[in-house]
Amino acid sequence: MQVKDVGEFGLIRRWERELAQDPEQVAQGIGDDAAVLDFPGGRQILATTDTLVESVHFDLAFTSPRQLGKKCMAVNLSDIAAMGGRARYALIALGLPGSTELAWLEDLYRGLQEEASRWSTWIVGGDTVRSPSGLVITVTVLGQVPQGRAVPRSGARPGDLVVVTGDLGGSAAGLASLTRSPSPVEPGVLEYVRRRQLEPIPRLAEGEIMAHHGASAMIDVSDGLASEVNHLARLSRVRVVVEEESIPMAPATRTLARVLEADALAWALNGGEDYELVSTVAPEQFAAMARAVRERTGTCLTVVGRVEAGAGCYLMKEGKRRRLEPTSYDHFLTTSGPSRTSP
Amino acid sequence: MQVKDVGEFGLIRRWERELAQDPEQVAQGIGDDAAVLDFPGGRQILATTDTLVESVHFDLAFTSPRQLGKKCMAVNLSDIAAMGGRARYALIALGLPGSTELAWLEDLYRGLQEEASRWSTWIVGGDTVRSPSGLVITVTVLGQVPQGRAVPRSGARPGDLVVVTGDLGGSAAGLASLTRSPSPVEPGVLEYVRRRQLEPIPRLAEGEIMAHHGASAMIDVSDGLASEVNHLARLSRVRVVVEEESIPMAPATRTLARVLEADALAWALNGGEDYELVSTVAPEQFAAMARAVRERTGTCLTVVGRVEAGAGCYLMKEGKRRRLEPTSYDHFLTTSGPSRTSP
Repeated sequence: MQVKDVGEFGLIRRWERELAQDPEQVAQGIGDDAAVLDFPGGRQILATTDTLVESVHFDLAFTSPRQLGKKCMAVNLSDIAAMGGRARYALIALGLPGSTELAWLEDLYRGLQEEASRWSTWIVGGDTVRSPSGLVITVTVLGQVPQGRAVPRSGARPGDLVVVTGDLGGSAAGLASLTRSPSPVEPGVLEYVRRRQLEPIPRLAEGEIMAHHGASAMIDVSDGLASEVNHLARLSRVRVVVEEESIPMAPATRTLARVLEADALAWALNGGEDYELVSTVAPEQFAAMARAVRERTGTCLTVVGRVEAGAGCYLMKEGKRRRLEPTSYDHFLTTSGPSRTSP
Repeated sequence: MQVKDVGEFGLIRRWERELAQDPEQVAQGIGDDAAVLDFPGGRQILATTDTLVESVHFDLAFTSPRQLGKKCMAVNLSDIAAMGGRARYALIALGLPGSTELAWLEDLYRGLQEEASRWSTWIVGGDTVRSPSGLVITVTVLGQVPQGRAVPRSGARPGDLVVVTGDLGGSAAGLASLTRSPSPVEPGVLEYVRRRQLEPIPRLAEGEIMAHHGASAMIDVSDGLASEVNHLARLSRVRVVVEEESIPMAPATRTLARVLEADALAWALNGGEDYELVSTVAPEQFAAMARAVRERTGTCLTVVGRVEAGAGCYLMKEGKRRRLEPTSYDHFLTTSGPSRTSP
């Protein structure tokens, strides 16, 4: 049996079983957005790593090196955000073809540096090696969180509301706009969705505020809302019900879906790479949380559903519920067609 | 200008300049074996990352997946050892072709896990992605060190002795034995050198003891003794003089050099991947350091040279000194011939 027969999530589950965890030393390990590590001294350290591979995760025809650097950093920072933590340090491992232009590489560094600095994160180390075919970028980010305050995926409780920051589907819309050249649309539409795809913003400030205001579980939207709520439901041993009509989508996303005759809802549910936060919170804590996030970051929180006793995820529309399956893209299982996450 | 025109070390120096460091937050950053990070609470955290790329750093014809996993972990643990630290946690980022056999992958995991466990290090996270062509393995290891006790590359002082753990050149001998099929040698010779190449042992216990016994500077031998002492001399702003006849080499390494008509000294100086520690220490502290290392780990420390005021590195033989240049292999600058670090 080969890797492509089980896919990424199958691999991760195998890995979880394979790797013995020491509950005394690792507060949370594989399977959450970031690992929560105890070191002597009180605060807990968060650690996360993500790899982006050329022609799997990005296409150099669409992204500038500066954008690529920013995005590689942002997707890792987003994992720290999803724990309610503060990012501190980053390490970069670069696999480069020998033919990489130095000017291009310096723009990549600049993007990595720019995004890190924006979030008061210091690049403190790395490894640069030759890669015979194509660029491979692995970023590891370390963060911190007050002792016992990391927000896991497993804390959702029946009765909680399900909330998301910002809007969903924009990143997939941006990818579609790059690969399918839409007919002319009003100014700003392409700029908005392409920025969502090429320069995602990690919700670090929002995550910290939400953690402070009672977020019981949290995850970032890397694979799509459907996949993320299924993670929350499985790990929290609860049911999640999402109201289809509550899912926040930007006007630009809806416009582009219309022009391309595409399904904006599918982008929001399964497109992924929005790097918004999905969180659960007790209803009585929601108003204060939303107000604090709004006042301090300008970002809207939207209630998209609720947590119930039970299992699995459901999508409600006009009073009818249907199963919401995690049909997100798996790089191993899909080998034809344009890559979802390119550029 | 392209990456292959400047090579890995040129890139790292550019990167050092490019990336602003915050001296308040980063005790030591890029350019040492591991970054030393301040977090609230007293202890400092060490962080290091290394990437191994198929057909650049290893050849699957020579290494078993278990050995490869062990080595990927070991080379990162070695960077923690070179700071005098204790390893605690590891993150693994794997880029895999879809055709990777699951049984093979599980052996790779097993090797990673086995080596980590041996050093009380817990694998706490990772990322598994598709790589269109060949395996890419990035390991990040986090360790700890008492506040202010990390041993930098920059601390060597005139008058210090230069010491190394174990023996040198064995790893390059092992690689030569795999690529050049030597004529029959006595039992144990091939086993010894191939184990040095395929299953290097990080000197974690030795590094911690040496740090405790006054190591003023330390580095691990990844690129060869010549390269490592040049790093120490440059960063400590001193001269290092190495006595050629003091360089410790195992009998098996010398035997193989004779059989293959190869130069054992060149293996020791420029072969690399021995993952021994090179350290500097005041002469009056050496005896106690060597005794403690010997008693608690069984490993010999050998004095190979001394630190002088001045700059550059020299190799002494029969009273004559010649410049010792860092002629180590650079993956970017050399593109033909078998890879030095394969398998």
